[in-house]
Amino acid sequence: VSLRSELFEQPQAAQRLLETGREPLVRVAARLADRPVDFAVVAARGSSDHAAIYAQYLFGVRHRLPVALAAPSVLSLYGVEPRFERALVIGISQSGASPDVVGVVAAARRQGATTLALTNEDASALALAAEFVVPLAAGPERAIAATKTYTAELLALAMLSSAVAGDGDRQVLEQLPGWLEQALGVEDDARSIAERQAGMDRCIVLGRGFEYATAREWALKLKELTGVVADPYSAADFLHGPVALVEPGFPLLAVAPSGAAADSIWSLLRGLQDEHRAELMVLSDEPALLGLSGRGLRLPGGIPEWLRPIVSIVPAQLHAYHLAVARGRDPEAPPHLAKVTLTR
Amino acid sequence: VSLRSELFEQPQAAQRLLETGREPLVRVAARLADRPVDFAVVAARGSSDHAAIYAQYLFGVRHRLPVALAAPSVLSLYGVEPRFERALVIGISQSGASPDVVGVVAAARRQGATTLALTNEDASALALAAEFVVPLAAGPERAIAATKTYTAELLALAMLSSAVAGDGDRQVLEQLPGWLEQALGVEDDARSIAERQAGMDRCIVLGRGFEYATAREWALKLKELTGVVADPYSAADFLHGPVALVEPGFPLLAVAPSGAAADSIWSLLRGLQDEHRAELMVLSDEPALLGLSGRGLRLPGGIPEWLRPIVSIVPAQLHAYHLAVARGRDPEAPPHLAKVTLTR
Repeated sequence: VSLRSELFEQPQAAQRLLETGREPLVRVAARLADRPVDFAVVAARGSSDHAAIYAQYLFGVRHRLPVALAAPSVLSLYGVEPRFERALVIGISQSGASPDVVGVVAAARRQGATTLALTNEDASALALAAEFVVPLAAGPERAIAATKTYTAELLALAMLSSAVAGDGDRQVLEQLPGWLEQALGVEDDARSIAERQAGMDRCIVLGRGFEYATAREWALKLKELTGVVADPYSAADFLHGPVALVEPGFPLLAVAPSGAAADSIWSLLRGLQDEHRAELMVLSDEPALLGLSGRGLRLPGGIPEWLRPIVSIVPAQLHAYHLAVARGRDPEAPPHLAKVTLTR
Repeated sequence: VSLRSELFEQPQAAQRLLETGREPLVRVAARLADRPVDFAVVAARGSSDHAAIYAQYLFGVRHRLPVALAAPSVLSLYGVEPRFERALVIGISQSGASPDVVGVVAAARRQGATTLALTNEDASALALAAEFVVPLAAGPERAIAATKTYTAELLALAMLSSAVAGDGDRQVLEQLPGWLEQALGVEDDARSIAERQAGMDRCIVLGRGFEYATAREWALKLKELTGVVADPYSAADFLHGPVALVEPGFPLLAVAPSGAAADSIWSLLRGLQDEHRAELMVLSDEPALLGLSGRGLRLPGGIPEWLRPIVSIVPAQLHAYHLAVARGRDPEAPPHLAKVTLTR
């Protein structure tokens, strides 16, 4: 039963990281003040790659810093080290073990770049490779599908942003455990929606801006746990082609809370439902958006947009968990997967 | 009948761009020699975003240059301009019209960054926004699904790489029209494979390294034209979760030619087929890889790996076209799409 219990440990895990992560992240921020960087590079795979997507919006919007997602194969397959001297290079990995991610961070450190590891394994190869290490402090994660380490990765990135910005966000960060607790309260709704979707075998998952990361991670949880081919799209990219998939009854899942993306996603979803009769499921804190669909999962209100992805994934995790159960799958034992995947 | 005829125009379009694109790209290369950059940023949507992924591997492997895919929403939704001063910022768009892509390039130019537009519309907003413009010279593209403009975008990027490297690749570049012609020769095989797949409604498309862009673009063509939910993955990321989808008979399409990624993708595909009885379709120039499956589409041999994505998408385009026909869809009129999509 590790998956469900780890999912429910997220408020405590966040609380721990808020206490233990601050000091090492303030040291990273001090280095960045001493030695400014022109851009950031994030090396990650799987769920951690979605933390990297969150970093794109977080550092872009809050620090005007362009963020590149490393293509680790450039190094691991083609043997070429991109020039990282003027970058902050962040490796993100629950296990800290995947050789391709470790390779990017080690190369960057050799080149003299500022390197940071976010990992749940303090003595891992990734932790050894990076100059700065922030342990995720999530406690052992035994379930194959990542839950609490994903939210811890996002929180560590948010805390880094906060340290760089001068630490004025401490009060709002401290509300996160409470918001996570609140988000866990929708389990009954998640279960009942999932039970009605047991026959689904494909869907699109939409998000935009900060919540694009949530759409990606939700889709991955669905693929790992439920056997549903869930293809994630930014709501903008979706219009550049994939919208052609939508036919009456086509399942569209959307992360569509209040904020800068709300208007554009609202008019997109309304069009898809009214004109093309898609079958919508919506995750939101906005009554107007929840009201678009009989399948709404409520997010806690009042969370600043830049922190909300840490919370909005939680109802999505509950939904994927219960959809797995509804489809007769064992969420503890997704086929063909081990907890640690080593790719080169 | 524009789609099929535009698809078959690709050798001529490439020939034209080889002639007209060289001079403007040599000017871009001269600027980059004068004023070196630390990284590149590419702003694009839809098919053009897959040209951006090609650029990640191309500039990474050949020039050690990290490449970030712009998240245009950082500017268009959140109103923040990332700092682009030390970047080469490339906007890629067939129509040159999408406001979010134009916005990134315009911001970069205001900041004094080197900006380049690759577009098929010489007088478009994107062409006006960028300091350097390379017209794709593909001729009017009327079909909604991009074909010849996609290969032209890739070729323009390859020619930029070649100009930066000092132009020693001219002979090999000049072989591209012939290779494109050869790739078009597999139409009968593409049709016969597609006819056997008419009942498919979901699949995974795999690629790795340089061919990850091809996997992404193939999946998009399938979504636009055939109604199949085709979810693309790098073969490495696929192992970090989505492999759990595979059950007996699950359709896996793979771009798996010779080169640096061949060994890892070969052992992955063999495992998926032997142990998990996936239903493979393989695009390759390697007999061993083609032999993995009764559904092999042959790529021309002898193409250098960095240029091959320009050619390897062609059999995939033919496959998507014929799968649309086999599924009773009109490839000229995908639902809900217009040729030009404007996103903000």
